[in-house]
Amino acid sequence: MSESNAVLIGRKPVMNYVLACITLFHGGAKEVNVKARGRSISQAVDVVEVVRRRFLPDVKIKKIGIGTEQMAPREEGGTPTNVSTIEITLEH
Amino acid sequence: MSESNAVLIGRKPVMNYVLACITLFHGGAKEVNVKARGRSISQAVDVVEVVRRRFLPDVKIKKIGIGTEQMAPREEGGTPTNVSTIEITLEH
Repeated sequence: MSESNAVLIGRKPVMNYVLACITLFHGGAKEVNVKARGRSISQAVDVVEVVRRRFLPDVKIKKIGIGTEQMAPREEGGTPTNVSTIEITLEH
Repeated sequence: MSESNAVLIGRKPVMNYVLACITLFHGGAKEVNVKARGRSISQAVDVVEVVRRRFLPDVKIKKIGIGTEQMAPREEGGTPTNVSTIEITLEH
């Protein structure tokens, strides 16, 4: 799958990301990858649920993966912190 | 799977739920279900990642499911709200 079909969830309103997913599918994408880290993980689930239940009922969840990423320390000499990640693959 | 092996994620510190999972596995559980709703979904992923990476590397993720639950309105005559859910099944 091309990485260009990834939607990275940040701090914007859920509907922005829902629209991004719908636009990708309407543009012919067969798969869309919804990715998030840390506190945005809950929002990633919200985005997927709204896409499937309100807009594109034919879209299925192909795979859900979770993991951990190590973030570089914020200041020099600090300790790196771990952050959880999620990746939800949707297919049309 | 028995529902008694469910760990419901709320607003306590992550380590409380990590300990609950470890206790269930040490007590002989073959599967543990980590469940969360709304903003706690991110924390559910944190709990699973800490259990697997720091304490029980033999534990595998069997299944991850997401969904939507309708919550009753807070006041009479209000509209019901939707909340996203996650359920992560771990197996030993």
